[in-house]
Amino acid sequence: MSENTQIVIRELPTDALSVTHFETKSAPMPEIGDGQLLVRTILMSLDAANRAWMQGATYREAVKPGDVMHTYSIGEIVESKAEGFAPGDIVAGEGGWASYTVMKAKAVKPISDYRPLTHHMSVLGIAGKTAYHGLLQIGDPKPGETVVVSAAAGSVGIFVGQIAKIKGARAVGIAGGPEKCAWLVDELGFDVAVDYKSKTFFKDLQAACPDGIDVYFDNVGGQILEAAMFLANLKARIVCCGAVSQYDTAEMTSPKGVPGLIVVKRLKMEGFIVMDFAKQDAQAEADLSQWYKDGKLKVVEDVLDGLESAPSGLIGLLHGENRGKRMVRVGPDSL
Amino acid sequence: MSENTQIVIRELPTDALSVTHFETKSAPMPEIGDGQLLVRTILMSLDAANRAWMQGATYREAVKPGDVMHTYSIGEIVESKAEGFAPGDIVAGEGGWASYTVMKAKAVKPISDYRPLTHHMSVLGIAGKTAYHGLLQIGDPKPGETVVVSAAAGSVGIFVGQIAKIKGARAVGIAGGPEKCAWLVDELGFDVAVDYKSKTFFKDLQAACPDGIDVYFDNVGGQILEAAMFLANLKARIVCCGAVSQYDTAEMTSPKGVPGLIVVKRLKMEGFIVMDFAKQDAQAEADLSQWYKDGKLKVVEDVLDGLESAPSGLIGLLHGENRGKRMVRVGPDSL
Repeated sequence: MSENTQIVIRELPTDALSVTHFETKSAPMPEIGDGQLLVRTILMSLDAANRAWMQGATYREAVKPGDVMHTYSIGEIVESKAEGFAPGDIVAGEGGWASYTVMKAKAVKPISDYRPLTHHMSVLGIAGKTAYHGLLQIGDPKPGETVVVSAAAGSVGIFVGQIAKIKGARAVGIAGGPEKCAWLVDELGFDVAVDYKSKTFFKDLQAACPDGIDVYFDNVGGQILEAAMFLANLKARIVCCGAVSQYDTAEMTSPKGVPGLIVVKRLKMEGFIVMDFAKQDAQAEADLSQWYKDGKLKVVEDVLDGLESAPSGLIGLLHGENRGKRMVRVGPDSL
Repeated sequence: MSENTQIVIRELPTDALSVTHFETKSAPMPEIGDGQLLVRTILMSLDAANRAWMQGATYREAVKPGDVMHTYSIGEIVESKAEGFAPGDIVAGEGGWASYTVMKAKAVKPISDYRPLTHHMSVLGIAGKTAYHGLLQIGDPKPGETVVVSAAAGSVGIFVGQIAKIKGARAVGIAGGPEKCAWLVDELGFDVAVDYKSKTFFKDLQAACPDGIDVYFDNVGGQILEAAMFLANLKARIVCCGAVSQYDTAEMTSPKGVPGLIVVKRLKMEGFIVMDFAKQDAQAEADLSQWYKDGKLKVVEDVLDGLESAPSGLIGLLHGENRGKRMVRVGPDSL
């Protein structure tokens, strides 16, 4: 326990991210001060947002060359200088791509007995709660309405479609490739799925939504957002959750029809991040775990092995490699 | 009373609108059927939306070559085939650029005794109610917040800024040219006004909003919308009322940062048209006329004379010629 392996940013990408933007370093074990915890990393979340942080300040500060890459992680306390926290406790919080990180006790969330731990990264974590709050608080789908979600096979998308079904709406997924699309329908119960890589994408989406779109949960931005706006019904709600099509490129494309279509169709577009709804988190966790227990909500996870798999894992995620929540298991734990 | 002068669309514009897109025709006096009214035009509204109708279907059907140009108008009934409506009654409704039009009795709004009639086109008309509903229902400004409105010297903008002040917010107007800007501050009580034609527009707007923007009431779209989104605070509301920068051109420009900035700043963008809030119209009219009587709300009108002034009047409006609500007085009435 004298050495800490870290993955740091060697250089910020100006276009597509590659593994050469990162390097692995060995650092001395960090020392902690009052109110801090030394945490051994068990699971690290991989998110499209990681790439957005490399573009500049977002809802959090930008990352810069030399920084240990930031992440949301779950780990075990190995040393504590904060009351109420003891070695062996499991906590979640803002960490880094490293075998050990320092966390502020005030900013961590203790993890309950609920196992497997991976569920705290997926259905009970940011992914599940993002889907739950965004769809229900902003999208507010009514029974019989059509809900469309992009990056539907991704960490958040799989829950958006399934929650839409639980609420009596029609769920249409947008994903890359016929296999993913078939999987969304066959395995996760989406009503239809549409391949955005197809040359007939717009027509396919139109055919998949014969009554138009009432709620569009947007994870991607760009031309898919544009297509959804053109097919949106009067008073449709657009839940702006992410813009993954815009993160890994130097070229930004805004959808046509802004603000024209917003005015004419009286659309509501609203952005959010999961922390905005922290007050409703307990309800979200209760509903999500109940639906899971009842077999109404399937949990799909994509767990990569070993700290060094993080850079290529993130790049693969930006290219749509994953199904469900992608994360990295750093420790040998079987929790 | 045997001849009806009409202005019809000769050709639809593909780029900027010009007077050659219209022609004046003489038509026989229309005959009315059951449930209809023959109405002598007194006032015709000129609106940027007139130009949008020439681009295709919007919230109403598109206009096409050969059509009498549509308008919202106020007139006097000269013949009625509908119960409850008699010659001499004053009504408002969907009319045309013509000395006489046929209106459906079910679709008109009887005009009360309140005079001058022009106020039913401005402060108590669509302009005033659009400002009232859009700002208060969607923008929802709190005392001390910064409200920015574009096309601030226009029919809706003059009321948005003044209502913002009445509600205790800071009002920042965006208008074209230093004279209009000075007028907004000196005559209408805006806190600051910023000239969008200036080369330092973005910096000027930033300086005018030291605490950022909480509510942006957008009448123009394009680069001004983009600037406002960049200066928007977390959880700012963008009221999408119109996109006049996009109407009189073949070239559409969407603001950069959609949906990126919407996500990161958790913005809400929402479109509306005045009819969406019809249930609150009575309250709007009561408040607006009370504020006017109390001297808190100035009414500015720009009344052109004669049916034939409509085409050039509309073109001028698209170029920002008007201050306050532009309309055409067709009859010789002094109502």
